[in-house]
Amino acid sequence: MTVSVEKWAESVCAGDVRAVSRAITAIENHQPEAEALLRLLFPRTGQAYLTGITGAPGTGKSTIVDRLASYHRRKQEQVGVIAVDPTSPYSGGAILGDRIRMQGHAGDAGTFIRSMATRGFLGGLARATAEVALLLDAAGKKHVLIETVGVGQDEIDVVRLADCVLVVLVPGLGDDIQNMKAGLMEIGDIFVLNKADREGADRLEQQLLAMLSLVMPRDGWHPPVVRTVAPENKGIEELSETVAKFRKHFESSGQRQRKHIEHWKNRLIGLLESRLLERALGGTGGESRLAEMAAEVADRKKDPFTAVNEILKSSGLDD
Amino acid sequence: MTVSVEKWAESVCAGDVRAVSRAITAIENHQPEAEALLRLLFPRTGQAYLTGITGAPGTGKSTIVDRLASYHRRKQEQVGVIAVDPTSPYSGGAILGDRIRMQGHAGDAGTFIRSMATRGFLGGLARATAEVALLLDAAGKKHVLIETVGVGQDEIDVVRLADCVLVVLVPGLGDDIQNMKAGLMEIGDIFVLNKADREGADRLEQQLLAMLSLVMPRDGWHPPVVRTVAPENKGIEELSETVAKFRKHFESSGQRQRKHIEHWKNRLIGLLESRLLERALGGTGGESRLAEMAAEVADRKKDPFTAVNEILKSSGLDD
Repeated sequence: MTVSVEKWAESVCAGDVRAVSRAITAIENHQPEAEALLRLLFPRTGQAYLTGITGAPGTGKSTIVDRLASYHRRKQEQVGVIAVDPTSPYSGGAILGDRIRMQGHAGDAGTFIRSMATRGFLGGLARATAEVALLLDAAGKKHVLIETVGVGQDEIDVVRLADCVLVVLVPGLGDDIQNMKAGLMEIGDIFVLNKADREGADRLEQQLLAMLSLVMPRDGWHPPVVRTVAPENKGIEELSETVAKFRKHFESSGQRQRKHIEHWKNRLIGLLESRLLERALGGTGGESRLAEMAAEVADRKKDPFTAVNEILKSSGLDD
Repeated sequence: MTVSVEKWAESVCAGDVRAVSRAITAIENHQPEAEALLRLLFPRTGQAYLTGITGAPGTGKSTIVDRLASYHRRKQEQVGVIAVDPTSPYSGGAILGDRIRMQGHAGDAGTFIRSMATRGFLGGLARATAEVALLLDAAGKKHVLIETVGVGQDEIDVVRLADCVLVVLVPGLGDDIQNMKAGLMEIGDIFVLNKADREGADRLEQQLLAMLSLVMPRDGWHPPVVRTVAPENKGIEELSETVAKFRKHFESSGQRQRKHIEHWKNRLIGLLESRLLERALGGTGGESRLAEMAAEVADRKKDPFTAVNEILKSSGLDD
């Protein structure tokens, strides 16, 4: 078994698509080999740059991802794409036309595309995505693009993994309001005004700039707005260059190591939490049991300490 | 001991200031009696309305809290104030003048004021504040005002406990930019433009409104901006009425029960997490040990799974 995991790791590092695919499946299904594999691969990671792309459905995130991937491929850089967006064209239940369009990359061994399902309620998605990102890193993808529709906390946690976060907005999507979901505004390192040839683009840009003037710069970085028309490839080069500028800003400001330690502190706490919570609540019916208990507590039929003790006891975690 | 905790609980319910103070100390020091006491008190809770007040230092949060407290006292409603803001005048290291001003309430048994220290790194502050809020609820305070300077995640977690969150901003505090720290924008149910008689107030209000037009309304509520000049009591009545309107909005929209269950689900998960993380990391040197491990992982000297297993093992939590 150990030998097989080692061979598997070798194949992943060689960029073997089937080995990578099998590993993702193992991560998603929480198979014990996944951890063994990632342990072996971990020393080979740390080379990839993770870009998160988020925004409401219909903002054209997937097309932007597609064009960014092409941009890097033209520079002979390998690309990995992780789509955790259920509305994404490369995920299972999408419109065939879009799917085929993105699959222009399908025959290209330098681009790996994989969609991930939204699942679990204990941060499982963020953890799985983080592990797939490590895997693609080990497989030599210098750029990992993580696409997510910025809705729930879980997805915000996903995008927080990234080194750089792009928030995509479009004018005239019914009304400007729906473009900004809770939390999105604060996590954007770069704002992408896509479909910038549409009516209302200038007004949206003004609104965005007014909003950004209120946001605290992080470590000296003022989030810029980049206008794109992704299907026509307009603004994609500027966007890539802005990402590179952001990357350079943090690498040259000497805060890279501090940021990485902070990042791994949070990742370790997250890993600990998810391990422990899974043991406490992850069994069959864990979520509905928690909801029942919460309802009892809300009704004052049970106090929260008793509820927590019961959960710990039934999972063998009480001291 | 059990008898004594029961008597203690009785005194708390009777609103006895010394009994409440002792209980807060017990909660802060994590004494086992605190949990026993809160268990007894829990069935008596659920009556208080929690308002969180947050904003940068110098925005006048404390004066607003002071004036809101007076407003409720004039209506014969009991008030509890929890200050988790280190810059707050009623906390330990504050300017004497401000402290005396707020202590206008000191002789009034209908107002209970307590400051809490920022401490711990595992969400301990949020948990302690939540427990003090339950205590004040049991002690008959119909309005609990939680003041916090909106800086770290920990403090944002504190303010999330509240039923209604006020974000306080002022014009001309150096520059508008510093008023908005990460996360604040998204958690405000009502924005308070304090010191509204100052230059730049109109401009700030315009910026705020532009920004708010981009924010997704939550359950049909559009966060309004209320202008105040707290020392002159201007706008305080309108602010209180806006809080009441917000409260009514959620009570009448039939989403109250759903919100409460969601709230307690998160509280139970938080309680579980903090219990388990404390066991895993809470010992002496836990934080520095975590930072060391994170540095090793960032340098690829150790993989994250091994790091987490080592932590679990040394705390006796491994399976």
